[in-house]
Amino acid sequence: MTSNMMNRSFVLVSRPKGMPVESDFRLEDTPVPNPGPGEIVIRNHYASLDPAIRGWLDDAPSYLPPVALGDPVRASTIGVVEASNVDRFKPGDWVMGLNRIEHYSVVAPDDFMHPIDISLAPSPTAYLSAMGAVGLTAWFGVNDVMKPEPGQTLLVSGAAGAVGSMVGQLAKLRGARVVGIAGGTEKCARLIDRYGFDAAIDYRGKDADALSGAIGEACPDGIDLVYENVGGIGLDATLMHINPYARIILCGLISEYNSAPYGTRNLWRVLVNTATIRGYLVSEFVDRFPEGSRAIAQLVSEGKLVFDEHIEEGIDSTYRAFMRLFEGSNQGKMILKLI
Amino acid sequence: MTSNMMNRSFVLVSRPKGMPVESDFRLEDTPVPNPGPGEIVIRNHYASLDPAIRGWLDDAPSYLPPVALGDPVRASTIGVVEASNVDRFKPGDWVMGLNRIEHYSVVAPDDFMHPIDISLAPSPTAYLSAMGAVGLTAWFGVNDVMKPEPGQTLLVSGAAGAVGSMVGQLAKLRGARVVGIAGGTEKCARLIDRYGFDAAIDYRGKDADALSGAIGEACPDGIDLVYENVGGIGLDATLMHINPYARIILCGLISEYNSAPYGTRNLWRVLVNTATIRGYLVSEFVDRFPEGSRAIAQLVSEGKLVFDEHIEEGIDSTYRAFMRLFEGSNQGKMILKLI
Repeated sequence: MTSNMMNRSFVLVSRPKGMPVESDFRLEDTPVPNPGPGEIVIRNHYASLDPAIRGWLDDAPSYLPPVALGDPVRASTIGVVEASNVDRFKPGDWVMGLNRIEHYSVVAPDDFMHPIDISLAPSPTAYLSAMGAVGLTAWFGVNDVMKPEPGQTLLVSGAAGAVGSMVGQLAKLRGARVVGIAGGTEKCARLIDRYGFDAAIDYRGKDADALSGAIGEACPDGIDLVYENVGGIGLDATLMHINPYARIILCGLISEYNSAPYGTRNLWRVLVNTATIRGYLVSEFVDRFPEGSRAIAQLVSEGKLVFDEHIEEGIDSTYRAFMRLFEGSNQGKMILKLI
Repeated sequence: MTSNMMNRSFVLVSRPKGMPVESDFRLEDTPVPNPGPGEIVIRNHYASLDPAIRGWLDDAPSYLPPVALGDPVRASTIGVVEASNVDRFKPGDWVMGLNRIEHYSVVAPDDFMHPIDISLAPSPTAYLSAMGAVGLTAWFGVNDVMKPEPGQTLLVSGAAGAVGSMVGQLAKLRGARVVGIAGGTEKCARLIDRYGFDAAIDYRGKDADALSGAIGEACPDGIDLVYENVGGIGLDATLMHINPYARIILCGLISEYNSAPYGTRNLWRVLVNTATIRGYLVSEFVDRFPEGSRAIAQLVSEGKLVFDEHIEEGIDSTYRAFMRLFEGSNQGKMILKLI
């Protein structure tokens, strides 16, 4: 059934040194193999381009094995089952999974692979943004790990990003005061006007001291909760304003993915405030993804939660679209349309 | 009663830039004032010299106010009440408190001030070592925060130090495998021979990679619990070997007290292992100090816990004795004998 179909994949050729360059990847056309026992064939419609992908390209011990040289790059995708040797997946089903950036994925379904009901979503792409890994990352991070309360101040970095913008909105729904750090006046305005943040800090053009000063002004009662997506000098400046017993959720370190880490120099503030830094991966909550997606869809349908998508067209655009994440030139969740 | 007695104090003259120099301090002789209402006069017999004192000399936001210029340097002391305007403290009582490095402290007793029963201790100085803030730091850190279990590997840095050597022994008593990092072959031998560690790593002469290699060899099953007293490249090397859900207790950062911090560059390992770094101050458990001291004294009397003291004589030796902490040339808890 699939033997005469051709696949196009976005393949890792060499491990990036610092910022990825176009020649670290190539597009490869190969026949789609027939699915083996226990395998399914998915026609990927959309792929999610996330900063975390950068980490999977390095040959370093992490929570997932590195993408092998010569293999298509790993990404969350949504698509339709074309052929199946697994009872619970039928041709025509929409599914979401941690697959690869390619037109067709032939895979043995793992814990991440699950059916999605696109009739519940404002659009199928919602399963890669608000209702997908990004939205779920914010959802469980806020509601199950941080649990912000009225009277608390929560600071989120990368606040205009896909995760950050939802973190801020979800924390506001729980009654916390929410302050965001983002790059540029346009993004900062969006934090206030579109996502309802209480205050926004533009990190551009600020050194560590200036950033610390701006954070102090925006957080006159100190910071109780930090949702960290960026690291680097922003995290150091943030640590200068944490309150005793502050809790910091470490969700991303995008400032360090393409360069030697700046190094966090203010860990002593964690010590003297008996604060906590907790690494966080949404995979901790994989069993509860359907619950989270439903809850998010409900908030979206009630108009209580807004989200933005930035959709780029075609697998040939993958490299440029991926790099936008590190330039910060996307306005909303970066999604690649494959069909 | 005290008006004709003279006091000698170890006074902060200027804030150290990096490593303290002798001229940052002076010895000052002043009359002992009469105690005011609610105050007591303590004849200090011993003062505890701890790395934490270095932090109190900086003008930076911390868990205690900085020592003011012109004031005696803050330290835990034990001594005997000479005069008292407070009902619960009588002349002749032995007390322990967070006082100052001086012969006589005239103070209004705070939460840290409490009577001690020296008949329970192998020597009064035990209240500044095994049964004092140092021992209690290890006690509550291990038994209430970390709770190591059989099958777990615990790594402790500054392992030959006053806190580290007790952490290792207490964790061994709970059945964990204990690995220590210390400076020099002599200290490493002491970890194994005297304190019963399972393995010891000499950090001297090793760069970050070599240290990481040595930690990997000593911890073939990875690290579940880290008791961090040092920071710097040792912490970075340690983070390369933590297991998923590892817990790191941040008790000290002695490598950073006198120099610009190295910066912790491997925080990404905390993220990808959903690990936790928790700042820790023994003051969190101040209500339970008597319970902890009793439990420690019991273990000492049963021969299950050993500890070492390094006693220097006389307030005029304070500066040199304090600097030994940063040279690592003390062998045991550094205590200054004042009488």
